[in-house]
Amino acid sequence: MQNILSGLRVVEGSAFVAAPSGGMTLAQLGADVIRFDPIVGGIDYRRWPVTKDQKSLYWHSLNKGKRSIAVDFKRPEGQELLTRLIAAPGEQAGMFLTNFPAKGWLSYERLRQEREDLIYLNLVGDRHGRGALDYTVNCKVGFPSMTGVGHSGDIAPLNNPMPAWDVITGQQIALGLLAAERHRARTGEGQLVRIALADVALATLGNLGYVAEAMINGTERDAIGNNIYGTYGHDFQCKDGERLMVVGVSPNQWRALVQVTGTENEIKALQDRLGLDFRKEGDRYKGRDGITEVFKPWFADRNFSEVTAELDKVGACWGKYQTVKEAVEQDIDCSVDNPLFQMVEQPGIGKYLMPDHPLRFTSVEREPVRPAPKLGEHTEEILADTLGLSAPEIARLFDEKIVASS
Amino acid sequence: MQNILSGLRVVEGSAFVAAPSGGMTLAQLGADVIRFDPIVGGIDYRRWPVTKDQKSLYWHSLNKGKRSIAVDFKRPEGQELLTRLIAAPGEQAGMFLTNFPAKGWLSYERLRQEREDLIYLNLVGDRHGRGALDYTVNCKVGFPSMTGVGHSGDIAPLNNPMPAWDVITGQQIALGLLAAERHRARTGEGQLVRIALADVALATLGNLGYVAEAMINGTERDAIGNNIYGTYGHDFQCKDGERLMVVGVSPNQWRALVQVTGTENEIKALQDRLGLDFRKEGDRYKGRDGITEVFKPWFADRNFSEVTAELDKVGACWGKYQTVKEAVEQDIDCSVDNPLFQMVEQPGIGKYLMPDHPLRFTSVEREPVRPAPKLGEHTEEILADTLGLSAPEIARLFDEKIVASS
Repeated sequence: MQNILSGLRVVEGSAFVAAPSGGMTLAQLGADVIRFDPIVGGIDYRRWPVTKDQKSLYWHSLNKGKRSIAVDFKRPEGQELLTRLIAAPGEQAGMFLTNFPAKGWLSYERLRQEREDLIYLNLVGDRHGRGALDYTVNCKVGFPSMTGVGHSGDIAPLNNPMPAWDVITGQQIALGLLAAERHRARTGEGQLVRIALADVALATLGNLGYVAEAMINGTERDAIGNNIYGTYGHDFQCKDGERLMVVGVSPNQWRALVQVTGTENEIKALQDRLGLDFRKEGDRYKGRDGITEVFKPWFADRNFSEVTAELDKVGACWGKYQTVKEAVEQDIDCSVDNPLFQMVEQPGIGKYLMPDHPLRFTSVEREPVRPAPKLGEHTEEILADTLGLSAPEIARLFDEKIVASS
Repeated sequence: MQNILSGLRVVEGSAFVAAPSGGMTLAQLGADVIRFDPIVGGIDYRRWPVTKDQKSLYWHSLNKGKRSIAVDFKRPEGQELLTRLIAAPGEQAGMFLTNFPAKGWLSYERLRQEREDLIYLNLVGDRHGRGALDYTVNCKVGFPSMTGVGHSGDIAPLNNPMPAWDVITGQQIALGLLAAERHRARTGEGQLVRIALADVALATLGNLGYVAEAMINGTERDAIGNNIYGTYGHDFQCKDGERLMVVGVSPNQWRALVQVTGTENEIKALQDRLGLDFRKEGDRYKGRDGITEVFKPWFADRNFSEVTAELDKVGACWGKYQTVKEAVEQDIDCSVDNPLFQMVEQPGIGKYLMPDHPLRFTSVEREPVRPAPKLGEHTEEILADTLGLSAPEIARLFDEKIVASS
């Protein structure tokens, strides 16, 4: 953790990936993030992957560094407690993040009555108020029809296993809360901030040039396998079966590839035959299949270790294809050698590598990464310290099962 | 644009996707973001997709809303000008974002001499100082071996066409600058903030539970096509050939699918035969192939419009597979009906849909989306207004080709 945001307090009512990862990001940067959940856990509390004891590695990975309060908020008294928590005083408090339905006791209008300068960030599925998940949004923006090989629209679409829109949205949620808090610190004004998962994907489609391409050029991109659109890059298999991705995007990267493979003459002959100028990225893209054929034997004749030693010598840019297990077992960047990671005990589960936020703020120390809380682990301290309830009041809430702890 | 960050000024020396999209995000939220480039344009100025006149739709999509100054910074006087710009006074200025090599005149140590409270965000490829692109990082974290169908590690890996790590990093860059500016506003202290593209991917791998899964369970995920790991979701083809993704992640979503397809009995028979309880997400995942077979005929017997009307009636969660061109031509969410988008003229290219940032700050108005600048469009005004140079001085800089405008 890095205490760059220390002092900030955010209350979170959330589930799944996007909203929890937004709160987790702020926690990783030192904010006090309090996630509330029903007493038995929220809808995401048991999601896969799970351990042999059915503990969710998903939930615990996505809620690191937060505090947890478990409340029965189907009952009015639970709702009242959470309302007080969300609206609790403090110059740097009064921030609420949720992907729950923003209605009834949890509506902005209602909560704002308790704290006028409340910052309320509401994540929704789409702008129409319909539910949406990463997988129902991703198909809408065309990437599954560009994955694999074939003519866009004619091939069976292939989903992306990494929920990119969720992860992007999580970072935007953290950004939105910080921007709104900056505004409040300067003007005193709180606000409702809205974001729709579907809009995140659509905006990205515009920002990466896809919308302009479709509208101005009227063209559609095909699925181009492991090529990179508009430049040169491809995967190669080495003699020992290992695979790597190499790119020739910048002029230096391109020259390094030609040099290391010793293919200057063949590459020159190829570009002359095709009438292209490989100094231009676009021409390298046009000639990509021929280029790959020229480079292929060099990789196929050498083992991975030799290939990569030679690539490094000339400053080529490459990456190894590996599975997650291979990364965890063999990649020094996925180990405590990388200051990003620490080995941390997750109570009830065991010790594993946990990442800090990839941003490194050099003005603050790197503190130990905190694991996820146990469900309700901080119920008592939050009721006492943050809401200032007396011991008998707290005891009554536990007795009546309005709150619980782990 | 939304002027939630108005007053903030960020200077950007950048190329490609991650760093420019970070600056663009701040510009979309109202900051004054000044991108500097060489007089002929940077390394990314002509990247594909391009128009028939070779104008880059990529560059123009990724630099919306910024101001542009064109400077020959291979020459000392150009370097000096940019140093003054980066270190220019102003409580909300003195912020620099770059993915250029942070050395020589552009090093933190050097620039900090001109402004002690400078905030300097430096994006690098990996923590070792090696170059990396989205495509050389993505292979390293295992997703290409989980794309398509087959046993992880045994299948030919398939790249993701959407540069997710770049896009995520862009949002984290914006977040990092805001967090550092908050720290400076409270303490007076500037700082160097570092982020490595490879770490962004590795951290995400940890945050989504993949690292814990490999370390605690010792298992590897296979490529599962268009299923969703740990829950139920699949794509279906309708009678007219249209495809959609449907999910049964929440209990409500699952019940809606069973209800709309009228398969209560078959689903019950299936779970009894398999010894599973489909009320549990994990059991739906275990029984996914059978479930898909049960649902398939309902979709295959109906046209897309009928299917989706029925799905909406029961509140099922679904998304349509469409290409980008189809989205642009037919999807109301990818049109000006969606307040996310505006039709904006990009000078020299034409009019197309441009997105605002998906965050919607209700305390500020939505202003017109600003297109990308022409290269050097703001050179003169920046020299005059921001650096306070006199007209003769500016004229000399143009004459000596130390600066240029479009």
